[in-house]
Amino acid sequence: MATRLGKRTLQLETRPRILASAGVAGKREAQGPLGSRFDRIFDDTTLGEVSWEKAESKLLLSAAQSALNKAKLQPSDVQAAFAGDLQSQCTSAVFGLRSLGIPYCGIFGACSTMAEGLLLAALAIESGGFSVTMAATSSHFCTAERQFRHPLEYGGQRTPTAQWTVTGAGAALLARQADAGAPYIDKVQLGTMVDLGVKDAGNMGAAMAPAAKKTIADFLHDTGTTPADYDLILTGDLGEVGSTLLCELMQREEGIDLSQKQRDCGLLIFDREKQDVHAGGSGCGCSASVLCADICRALREDTLQSVLFVATGALMSAVSSKQGESIPGIAHAVLLKKGEPQ
Amino acid sequence: MATRLGKRTLQLETRPRILASAGVAGKREAQGPLGSRFDRIFDDTTLGEVSWEKAESKLLLSAAQSALNKAKLQPSDVQAAFAGDLQSQCTSAVFGLRSLGIPYCGIFGACSTMAEGLLLAALAIESGGFSVTMAATSSHFCTAERQFRHPLEYGGQRTPTAQWTVTGAGAALLARQADAGAPYIDKVQLGTMVDLGVKDAGNMGAAMAPAAKKTIADFLHDTGTTPADYDLILTGDLGEVGSTLLCELMQREEGIDLSQKQRDCGLLIFDREKQDVHAGGSGCGCSASVLCADICRALREDTLQSVLFVATGALMSAVSSKQGESIPGIAHAVLLKKGEPQ
Repeated sequence: MATRLGKRTLQLETRPRILASAGVAGKREAQGPLGSRFDRIFDDTTLGEVSWEKAESKLLLSAAQSALNKAKLQPSDVQAAFAGDLQSQCTSAVFGLRSLGIPYCGIFGACSTMAEGLLLAALAIESGGFSVTMAATSSHFCTAERQFRHPLEYGGQRTPTAQWTVTGAGAALLARQADAGAPYIDKVQLGTMVDLGVKDAGNMGAAMAPAAKKTIADFLHDTGTTPADYDLILTGDLGEVGSTLLCELMQREEGIDLSQKQRDCGLLIFDREKQDVHAGGSGCGCSASVLCADICRALREDTLQSVLFVATGALMSAVSSKQGESIPGIAHAVLLKKGEPQ
Repeated sequence: MATRLGKRTLQLETRPRILASAGVAGKREAQGPLGSRFDRIFDDTTLGEVSWEKAESKLLLSAAQSALNKAKLQPSDVQAAFAGDLQSQCTSAVFGLRSLGIPYCGIFGACSTMAEGLLLAALAIESGGFSVTMAATSSHFCTAERQFRHPLEYGGQRTPTAQWTVTGAGAALLARQADAGAPYIDKVQLGTMVDLGVKDAGNMGAAMAPAAKKTIADFLHDTGTTPADYDLILTGDLGEVGSTLLCELMQREEGIDLSQKQRDCGLLIFDREKQDVHAGGSGCGCSASVLCADICRALREDTLQSVLFVATGALMSAVSSKQGESIPGIAHAVLLKKGEPQ
């Protein structure tokens, strides 16, 4: 049974293990610093499909299948998939996973989806009713761009604060039991919406930073820990603007220096010196592919021992922006630790 | 701890209680057979807002606040809200619940959202980490119509198989402890997508009936029960076409006669003789408002003892339909029982 630490954080008793995870990505992501870490790379980001939306579904399916292969599991071994994406009505996850026949729980957390999925997949195991669960999500530059911003053919200028939606997907399989080296989920926190009135859909980092600050501050407070207790506080995806804001807010409002431990998936996945991605990467597939391909592997390889994963989401739509709404941010936290629990 | 019955169904040990629930609805719904059961009725379905989307958010907030009032709880007493809706990026739930400050878990299950939310809200309690949780969802005829079908001003003809999206919302509060009369959640089942290739977005009932059939058949099989063991098998929202198909499929493929016990929220909410709604009601708010306003009350009033609630969703978008995709259906099951567990 999970127990509540402080007001918002949960200590998991079963400490669900990450049996296997896989992150797949497109050509531009493969050219970035994490290129060698991805489980599969698609140079042709149409993936041979007739639409970008169908391509994204295939990307998500590829991540799910890679994770299943690594875990030597069949889809029928998985008792629940918690999945979603940025497409309206979360159709990438629906059509990506349709063929697998896994009981399906559709979720929507914008770019926080990987953390939300891991949290639910872990809670499902903690409830006792599930032995093996999956969390998965995806994004595709072309589906996001034409849905949220402009037709691709328009070729509009992007502001310096804009982020580049990652073409990528991640999937993780959780289980009650796993091999000795498997990382596990120790604690989780479901985030609360924070909306300070940012309306600029070209500056998601600023919209999401206050939510990340709240979740991390609540987590540190609930657990009585400091940033020094973690190898990494991994946000995703605040980019350059949002990461700077997060550290400033944390210093000013909480007196906590986050700068030594905080890294952002949107900044890790691209080399901003060489790649024209403005403020960094974004999209559900950004933190999902970085976590599932790079971070989980580092936890297995012993180069990381404890990672506080805090994926952030901007809960807006093209319609809400056109109707003048501001952008509520949200951030969910998942504490990953290496090897066997003490 | 939850235990697994058969392959897919979970027996909940904590049997989370429905502390309070509320269903709110618009003018047309108020003129239907359940008019007197709704907690609040809005004759002006703009709810004084400048857009239908903002009106829908207010509808969802109204249901959530009514449920909180009935339970005599503050938003800060609720540790998680599982909510979503049909709008792209689930913005009705986001903007509806933003002001309450409840930790937020966005979900997407199309018209199955109320069952998915109840299932997750119950699992959260079962995990031990949550004492009070909320499930909520909404739909609005005008937001759904212009998003999925045609501009409202177009005034197109609707086919006889089409369903009328309910303007309504429902919210339920779950807790480990409640008063003696509170109904409780005994068993749950997360559904699996079923897609038999239906592509007609004007015939959702046909697209969803096979998923409802699978979930109900699995549930009866896992629990070793028959329809006679339940007062009501409540689907939502198959309408006339889907309900007929469900009963036919169940009879032909499983040899089970469902017709005496199956009723559909889409048929209960409107009087099809007097109201021009074609095959019946639909939308997340249909089964949510019927369940939260009428059925939960009947369980408290002792006129129902056990209700197998099976909300169904059509997992499609306007984009997926335009790209020629078929419509995967899904159905989640939640077994509600009256009073105190034995």
